[in-house]
Amino acid sequence: MFEKVLIANRGEIAVRVIRACRAMGIKTVAVYSTADRQSLHTYLADEAVCIGPAQARDSYLNIPAIITAAKGTGADAIHPGYGFLSENSTFAKMCRENDIAFIGPTPEVIDRMGNKSQARRTMMDAGVPVVPGTKKGIHDVGEALEQARKIGWPIMIKASSGGGGKGMRVSESEEDFADMFNIAQRESVNAFADNTMYLERAVQNPRHVEVQIIADTHGNVVALGERDCSVQRNHQKMIEESPSPALDEELRARMMDDAVKAARAVGYTSAGTIEFLLDDDRNYYFMEMNTRIQVEHCVTEMVTHTDLVGEMIRVAAGEVLSFTQDDIQLHGHAIECRINAEMPEKNFMPSPGTISQTHLPGGNGVRVDTAAYDGFEITPYYDSMIAKVIVLGRNRTEAIAKMRTALEEMVVVGVQTNLDFQYSILENETFCAGEANTSFIERFLAGEV
Amino acid sequence: MFEKVLIANRGEIAVRVIRACRAMGIKTVAVYSTADRQSLHTYLADEAVCIGPAQARDSYLNIPAIITAAKGTGADAIHPGYGFLSENSTFAKMCRENDIAFIGPTPEVIDRMGNKSQARRTMMDAGVPVVPGTKKGIHDVGEALEQARKIGWPIMIKASSGGGGKGMRVSESEEDFADMFNIAQRESVNAFADNTMYLERAVQNPRHVEVQIIADTHGNVVALGERDCSVQRNHQKMIEESPSPALDEELRARMMDDAVKAARAVGYTSAGTIEFLLDDDRNYYFMEMNTRIQVEHCVTEMVTHTDLVGEMIRVAAGEVLSFTQDDIQLHGHAIECRINAEMPEKNFMPSPGTISQTHLPGGNGVRVDTAAYDGFEITPYYDSMIAKVIVLGRNRTEAIAKMRTALEEMVVVGVQTNLDFQYSILENETFCAGEANTSFIERFLAGEV
Repeated sequence: MFEKVLIANRGEIAVRVIRACRAMGIKTVAVYSTADRQSLHTYLADEAVCIGPAQARDSYLNIPAIITAAKGTGADAIHPGYGFLSENSTFAKMCRENDIAFIGPTPEVIDRMGNKSQARRTMMDAGVPVVPGTKKGIHDVGEALEQARKIGWPIMIKASSGGGGKGMRVSESEEDFADMFNIAQRESVNAFADNTMYLERAVQNPRHVEVQIIADTHGNVVALGERDCSVQRNHQKMIEESPSPALDEELRARMMDDAVKAARAVGYTSAGTIEFLLDDDRNYYFMEMNTRIQVEHCVTEMVTHTDLVGEMIRVAAGEVLSFTQDDIQLHGHAIECRINAEMPEKNFMPSPGTISQTHLPGGNGVRVDTAAYDGFEITPYYDSMIAKVIVLGRNRTEAIAKMRTALEEMVVVGVQTNLDFQYSILENETFCAGEANTSFIERFLAGEV
Repeated sequence: MFEKVLIANRGEIAVRVIRACRAMGIKTVAVYSTADRQSLHTYLADEAVCIGPAQARDSYLNIPAIITAAKGTGADAIHPGYGFLSENSTFAKMCRENDIAFIGPTPEVIDRMGNKSQARRTMMDAGVPVVPGTKKGIHDVGEALEQARKIGWPIMIKASSGGGGKGMRVSESEEDFADMFNIAQRESVNAFADNTMYLERAVQNPRHVEVQIIADTHGNVVALGERDCSVQRNHQKMIEESPSPALDEELRARMMDDAVKAARAVGYTSAGTIEFLLDDDRNYYFMEMNTRIQVEHCVTEMVTHTDLVGEMIRVAAGEVLSFTQDDIQLHGHAIECRINAEMPEKNFMPSPGTISQTHLPGGNGVRVDTAAYDGFEITPYYDSMIAKVIVLGRNRTEAIAKMRTALEEMVVVGVQTNLDFQYSILENETFCAGEANTSFIERFLAGEV
């Protein structure tokens, strides 16, 4: 097992990894930007190294500074958390070249899944359903139009190197196709220096359902059920739950099988997530794979009674998975609400500032993951998440009731938060009926649900 | 199911019951003394009724005031929590006479187990092992001495109506026997208006191991493993854990069987605990039964993935237990530390005052049950508990490491606490080796372990 792990991240996920390491008797190194000098993760780790100024590109994205910190402190492994360098294959390669274990998949696998059109082809070859669309990269608008006619409208135009909504456009009909293609391609060239595009049929009002998997280096792959993350605003998840209210046993079994198939197809090792779009007719399509731990991993931990971060560390050290597929049963229903310092009424604009006081909910089946404390400053440099509140109930109704109670108990003074907005979703009929899809927040804001 | 539950208690257990009710969609009524006007349970309940002045005998022990509050608010059930009226059969009877469900066993069962010598006889008849001693109540010192000679020294002299260490003395030899008997009997007369005594052989340096059971009104009784509560000071538990490091599967199975036998013998319904003394030779003896939920129930909830308070409410409403004995497996290892406002260096004298700031630990497998908040006053009127911190690890070593991290993260400003004292136990070799018995704290303070 590793002796010392450096956590190349900040905020609640850095705290999460530090806690997992301490439970396993592993020493920890925090890295921090000058803006994070007072952050909780710097206090909780055994050592803390400043790696640069506030701007992420100079600190949390600064590969040489982080590798230097690891070597200087004698860390034998690095956990990248989520965001920042967690899906950066160059970083994973640099770790390998410096004899530091990267707690995640190999750089080759990160690359294979990071290129969206390549990932799509890999999944098609493995027999995992993908949205009907083009098989190869397209560089030319004429060729694209020809393909589009075969697929049928509405069509998603996507950049092969894309991500975060960049280089992506929806074409509603043949009339707007050429314009949308050109706009998306220009965006891709500017953002990713790559003019390779691909097309997919647009799935109407899908749900976002993702399967958590974890794989060791001995060929074992286990799927840990699914998460429904349909409640999103601007492609950012707000509420996640497990199991999905849209799945029955048969559909769950098929999606889990396909997720394991996907992981095996790329020789995956570590924790990862296969994201699917699910339509009203129970068709699901591979969307992408996240080759890292996710914000919402906690709901899976609650219903499966596992420790995914601890397990990631163990498999990165070469251990065999501590559970088999047969050990994984979903018990009860878990929900996570992301509590952010933001103004929902102003299009979720961040509300940075100093948290003067907090009161956290607790009790049976209530988990809070946070790096906030009284006097902690939410800076404008990073994301605005204050805490994740996760509850486990015997069933979905009980979980919703528990979450309402938890949010009522929670107090955050000093910044504006989405607590009331989250609460109002938990009271919404469509959400409570388990019928929210990815257009839910938009329709909720428009008063349509 | 009940529509409205009144919680005849305060502090963290009142909050615990309120949360359980809310998760089940049941309305709640808090009762409070004038000293508890600002207590968390009064804020969290749907309604709150003042039942008297600070002194417990005038408020939380005031049966007419509580029954009146229940009738006035239309509560159809009362949960008594622990302490106060939770094991008072008169209160349970008054509830029955007023058509209010008492969330606990029947008054008859409370009486049967509340009388210590009667409980002892019941257990002997049921075939549950008891410490060798007298079979009937004794009122006369001469008769007592005669019995003592048959049992052999050291001997525990106990009041039949006793509890909390009152009316209890150890006689080391024949010389001190008459004096000790008279002192204990006088104490019993003063405290319980009862001169009935009984004798038991004193078990040397036992462990305190108790089995959690729950029974419904349909004849189902389930044992939920055991808790080791050997780390006590002045007969008050400080650290509790499940499973006990002293038990193997065979011994656990026998103790659980005997606990179920004990519950069946008295026709028990609701959650209850059979407390045993366990000696170095794997002999165990029935000590007493607690006919209520206990402070340390949380460690059992963590390892068995159950909701004991919710289940108590369901069985009180006539439902069948939601799990069978086969469903109960112990997963991992849970530890609870009671964080008190007290001064360990001054014989654990309470340290009342206002908590100006708190920071609670959190994350995967960390649970905090508390009624404290920033600005909350710990008054001298009630117990000094601030919070229960409970952790779940894959094994005992991991649980201890997790608890250390949790206590390091926890901040309480404004009152003195036993946080450092608890931490020092978690670093003690004897405790870490799983070898603490009920004399541990004494020896720890004396520097002998």
